Amino acid sequence: MTDINKINEFRVNNFGAGPGCVPTEVLLEAQKELLNFQGCGKSIMEVSHRGKEFEGVINETKSNLKKLLSINDDYDVLFLQGGASSLFAGIPMNLCENGVEDTVDFIVTGSWSKQATADGKYFCKVNKVVDMEKEKFLTVTEPSQWKFSEDAKYVHYCDNETIHGIEMPITTPDHLPSNLIKVCDMSSNFLSKPIDVSKFDLIFAGAQKNAGISGITIVIIKKSLLLKTKPNVPSVFNFLKKSQNNSLDNTPPTFNIYITGLILKWIINKGGLGEIEKLNIAKAHALYNYIDGSNGFYRCSIDKIYRSRMNVVFRIQDGNIELEEKFIKEAAKENITDIKGHRSVGGLRVSLYNAITIDQTLILINFMTNFYNNNK
Amino acid sequence: MTDINKINEFRVNNFGAGPGCVPTEVLLEAQKELLNFQGCGKSIMEVSHRGKEFEGVINETKSNLKKLLSINDDYDVLFLQGGASSLFAGIPMNLCENGVEDTVDFIVTGSWSKQATADGKYFCKVNKVVDMEKEKFLTVTEPSQWKFSEDAKYVHYCDNETIHGIEMPITTPDHLPSNLIKVCDMSSNFLSKPIDVSKFDLIFAGAQKNAGISGITIVIIKKSLLLKTKPNVPSVFNFLKKSQNNSLDNTPPTFNIYITGLILKWIINKGGLGEIEKLNIAKAHALYNYIDGSNGFYRCSIDKIYRSRMNVVFRIQDGNIELEEKFIKEAAKENITDIKGHRSVGGLRVSLYNAITIDQTLILINFMTNFYNNNK
Repeated sequence: MTDINKINEFRVNNFGAGPGCVPTEVLLEAQKELLNFQGCGKSIMEVSHRGKEFEGVINETKSNLKKLLSINDDYDVLFLQGGASSLFAGIPMNLCENGVEDTVDFIVTGSWSKQATADGKYFCKVNKVVDMEKEKFLTVTEPSQWKFSEDAKYVHYCDNETIHGIEMPITTPDHLPSNLIKVCDMSSNFLSKPIDVSKFDLIFAGAQKNAGISGITIVIIKKSLLLKTKPNVPSVFNFLKKSQNNSLDNTPPTFNIYITGLILKWIINKGGLGEIEKLNIAKAHALYNYIDGSNGFYRCSIDKIYRSRMNVVFRIQDGNIELEEKFIKEAAKENITDIKGHRSVGGLRVSLYNAITIDQTLILINFMTNFYNNNK
Repeated sequence: MTDINKINEFRVNNFGAGPGCVPTEVLLEAQKELLNFQGCGKSIMEVSHRGKEFEGVINETKSNLKKLLSINDDYDVLFLQGGASSLFAGIPMNLCENGVEDTVDFIVTGSWSKQATADGKYFCKVNKVVDMEKEKFLTVTEPSQWKFSEDAKYVHYCDNETIHGIEMPITTPDHLPSNLIKVCDMSSNFLSKPIDVSKFDLIFAGAQKNAGISGITIVIIKKSLLLKTKPNVPSVFNFLKKSQNNSLDNTPPTFNIYITGLILKWIINKGGLGEIEKLNIAKAHALYNYIDGSNGFYRCSIDKIYRSRMNVVFRIQDGNIELEEKFIKEAAKENITDIKGHRSVGGLRVSLYNAITIDQTLILINFMTNFYNNNK
């Protein structure tokens, strides 16, 4: 414990949206064995992807992920490269054998689902079931109003919009047509809470929020879907080829998978996803409650039922840019960093990923209180 | 110096083909700053890809690569994900606008160029200019016999066949039709020697041999080629999009790029690629000379002018499997590891990447001498 406290003295409170903070314990473990992985005399960066050391890492990582999310044998877990957004092309290439003649339904609730339609339009016919851009992505029309097409190959939605701070309710898949293949981009809330994988056909997530570092994309896919993949789907996101080869058809990002493995063990040590969720609820409640109680000095304009636990987006005095800049500057002096809103929306954004502790959240709220008192 | 020597006491002599050994100095540097990159209070794994810390890393890495290889402004350097072999689909998708109606010339000299034709056939019409498989990939027909097609969009060859131990002469591009676009897979000899980039239109390399760790693919591309890329090329290998966004159109593998940056600085400290090449020549000469002088106990069957400096492939007593297994076992006792030949060819393979020192090569030769004396 003392060790960690000493180390945290020089580490900042990094509320960045991603690549986000990594638990200090995970970094310490990686540092300790960086030149000598489990006594093999090599760094994990230097071992063959086909050797026994890495085989142990990838199999344990896969198995721990299956345990944590209670993934049953109807599903396979794949480790891909290219980033989650590479799959905006990769998924239709796998699932739409007739290319732009095949329709895909998209639920557009923020920048990432919007980009999925922009990138996807070269590989499928895009149907927007709902498009919240006209509402500035501050809310989501209720599911009974969503207009599904009759012949969609699948429906795509983004469970947590990192840029706009919108998170879909856990019940969302229940509001989708039962016979429709369900594809969900969980990049920024993956592993932040338990989910019922069996409600989905394909879940994908870039790791660099709660599940690792950038350079690895996790895919959970129903095995029956793999039959749709044709041989002309490029290897980089050929789900069938990846599944048949345990993600080892070519050299995977070995170090990145190793870090995901360490993070999964850290989550298990914390008591699993149920315990992680409790902490995430506590952190998000504390911050939103403080914002809502600040007499409008701080304001989060997102519809309450869609507010993200992971990315808290807010403004100061409804967009006082000077004051927001002052806020960022003074926060930095208190070792509170990476809180600037995405360049496309401005304002402030605080990301409360798993590695952020309750203490760190309270440090932030304490700073916000002082800033409010000095600038109201 | 003492520090490195102490550390090398527990580190094995890793002659693996890739992911290969990383210079101990690079690992030490990464380890030292793993929790606090340049005093920013964050790990390099935790910084935003759009923040000033990572911007410094990617720009310095790009600039050092340009300096080391004397890359002029007609070229851009891209950092991609997916592995070099993902580009067996990605390159025709960028360069063949008519797909399988467009012909590509392939020089097939080993497993990797063969796989390029197998993966590429879905995205272009494959013409094998020469196919050395019938000769078991032990030599290469001389260039005057190569049969180029009249209308190829480009020619693809692999400069160093990691599995078969074949390396093409530095003069190879001079034997290609001057008006033909030249694409070269340099995955396993990239940064092992100076090259004249201006003789190529596109060079690509997975980093995990001499240029970094797995999870990053380096592309050097003539800017005029970028005009060929159509918007329906998936982002993951859309050369135009990557170039326009300094490889930051989505989150890149930040840690992996950082390690490449450290390795480039290590090469610069060693005196640059000319000095590196001298060491690589010395190591390869020592090993091949020893093998050739072993009265056939060890034998490398590769045609001498095509023998790879990077991957030395050989057999014991022309394929005495029991003795080869004994060799691997006894070598391990002397901390000599990862010398088993690729499963598709058998035998032994010693990779002499940049991070392998002359001392380590001599340790290996000394072991081989003792093994010869005990088993001849």
